[in-house]
Amino acid sequence: MRILSGLQPTGRLHLGNYFGMMQPALQLQHQGEALYFIADYHSLTSLHDAAVLRENVRNLAIDFLACGLDPEKAIFFRQSSVPEHTELAWILSCVTPMPMLENCTSFKDKVAHGFVPNHGLFAYPVLMAADILIYDSDLVPVGKDQKQHLEVTRDIASKMNATFGEGTLKVPKPMIREATAIVPGLDGQKMSKSYGNIIGLFEEEAALKKKIMRIVTDATPVEAPKPTEGSLILQMYRLVTTDEEYNALVADFQKGGAGYGDFKKRLFEKTWAFFAEAREKREAILSQKGYVEDVLHQGAAKARAYAQQTLSRVRLAVGLD
Amino acid sequence: MRILSGLQPTGRLHLGNYFGMMQPALQLQHQGEALYFIADYHSLTSLHDAAVLRENVRNLAIDFLACGLDPEKAIFFRQSSVPEHTELAWILSCVTPMPMLENCTSFKDKVAHGFVPNHGLFAYPVLMAADILIYDSDLVPVGKDQKQHLEVTRDIASKMNATFGEGTLKVPKPMIREATAIVPGLDGQKMSKSYGNIIGLFEEEAALKKKIMRIVTDATPVEAPKPTEGSLILQMYRLVTTDEEYNALVADFQKGGAGYGDFKKRLFEKTWAFFAEAREKREAILSQKGYVEDVLHQGAAKARAYAQQTLSRVRLAVGLD
Repeated sequence: MRILSGLQPTGRLHLGNYFGMMQPALQLQHQGEALYFIADYHSLTSLHDAAVLRENVRNLAIDFLACGLDPEKAIFFRQSSVPEHTELAWILSCVTPMPMLENCTSFKDKVAHGFVPNHGLFAYPVLMAADILIYDSDLVPVGKDQKQHLEVTRDIASKMNATFGEGTLKVPKPMIREATAIVPGLDGQKMSKSYGNIIGLFEEEAALKKKIMRIVTDATPVEAPKPTEGSLILQMYRLVTTDEEYNALVADFQKGGAGYGDFKKRLFEKTWAFFAEAREKREAILSQKGYVEDVLHQGAAKARAYAQQTLSRVRLAVGLD
Repeated sequence: MRILSGLQPTGRLHLGNYFGMMQPALQLQHQGEALYFIADYHSLTSLHDAAVLRENVRNLAIDFLACGLDPEKAIFFRQSSVPEHTELAWILSCVTPMPMLENCTSFKDKVAHGFVPNHGLFAYPVLMAADILIYDSDLVPVGKDQKQHLEVTRDIASKMNATFGEGTLKVPKPMIREATAIVPGLDGQKMSKSYGNIIGLFEEEAALKKKIMRIVTDATPVEAPKPTEGSLILQMYRLVTTDEEYNALVADFQKGGAGYGDFKKRLFEKTWAFFAEAREKREAILSQKGYVEDVLHQGAAKARAYAQQTLSRVRLAVGLD
């Protein structure tokens, strides 16, 4: 079973990205043949700075490898190393009715907000369809916000099969992640770079501590029991500890007699420990010059071989051989 | 100077195609380094039959070679042999504002006529921009109907340069063919397959004669002078003869004493003779197994080397290296 995941290179990752997207994505490499691509063609729809794009791609690759992506098991590559994606996208465009794209909510929302979109943003679902279909992917895990785009992919694949013969493309199954972990930021809003409330995935020890000490709490006195409902400390603690450890902290909240400062210190320690292995791996990766590039090259070669196979089949079906 | 021409593989060519498009295109190979591509990616926007597409491509290639395209001089290739076109098209899409495409008249016309277009048809001007820009083309001769699309190409190139640095792409000069020969069909309407009034470029002798004898004329008696104004016979004769020969026929029209049947016979003879060399060349090409494929392969290799050069420069500029 082939499972495909696209990763947006949007900059250094934070805990929200890790628990919301990275952790579930990494679990997939144990469920089948996983392909992970860094979606740099897609980035161009909104990022027009070569240096930033390069840095984002490299950082994303480093962070994924540090957090456990196993290049012996999964295929890890840059989208733009497999230009076959764009060729298939063109072919798919020729059977994609305009209304199918015009009705995509994410595009309509942007227009409704007075944004003048570029054509890449409009054509995005077709390139996404190509990303998926070119690997004969069986399963594509996506968040709810991508559910409609995956429907477009399935519709395009069916249209291709109806037009050029059954078996031209494999119609993939969606796998909608219903519950992704919602990670609160330092201020209690959803953790997001645009809110300035993030904790980076690989903060320095002192910086991490400082940030965690800034987490917003209420004014309950030290002696009194602390409310557990809505506690940011507990929500974050939940993510980095075992049930047992978590329950112990809940009990200490309810007992009273300790201040938020103590709890934050415990949160800091667990958070720091949680990423110890990834930090070590990250150091090892960084010390090995050319390692990341090698992994991505090797991944691209494997991915490209698959992509070329599918594309040959499609070119034959449409008459471009 | 690099001159680029795209050729639509729409089926067997007729005299309207020859004098309207092929003859002027072939003159370009003497004016600079000419690149001719068979636009099969574009065909997919309207043609969804692999066998027909294949045949159209092959016939177009044969006819162009027969009519004098010199593969030693010009670069002749299939668009789909240079998939770099589609990769550049994606990159260009990311700086192309939607209104630029929405305002293209040819697209708006189709929508206004109740046609539900596919996305390929909408994105067509972006792929056309890529076709042109990927060869650092200096000059692009187009008909009036393509003037707006060429403006889009220039706008996209300028936008790329403004966004990613001057020199990222060369802004091509348009060369609008003001006066293309208008070739009348057998019934006096413009020659067009959809009117069923065409004379094929390589008709059999008997078929050609039969068609020419069917040309619509008026009821002027044999003895009387014939009107020269609006005469289809004279219009066609003009295309296949020297000034002297043409003037001689005009004089015979004005003198009277000969019927339209005689004039048609003369038109047939000159038409048959006009394409004698091309017919011979065509036979030679057809008898040389693999010749057409070889020419297109060699052309594609040269074109691809140019395309890859430009694409590398663009990828570097946008951060995909």
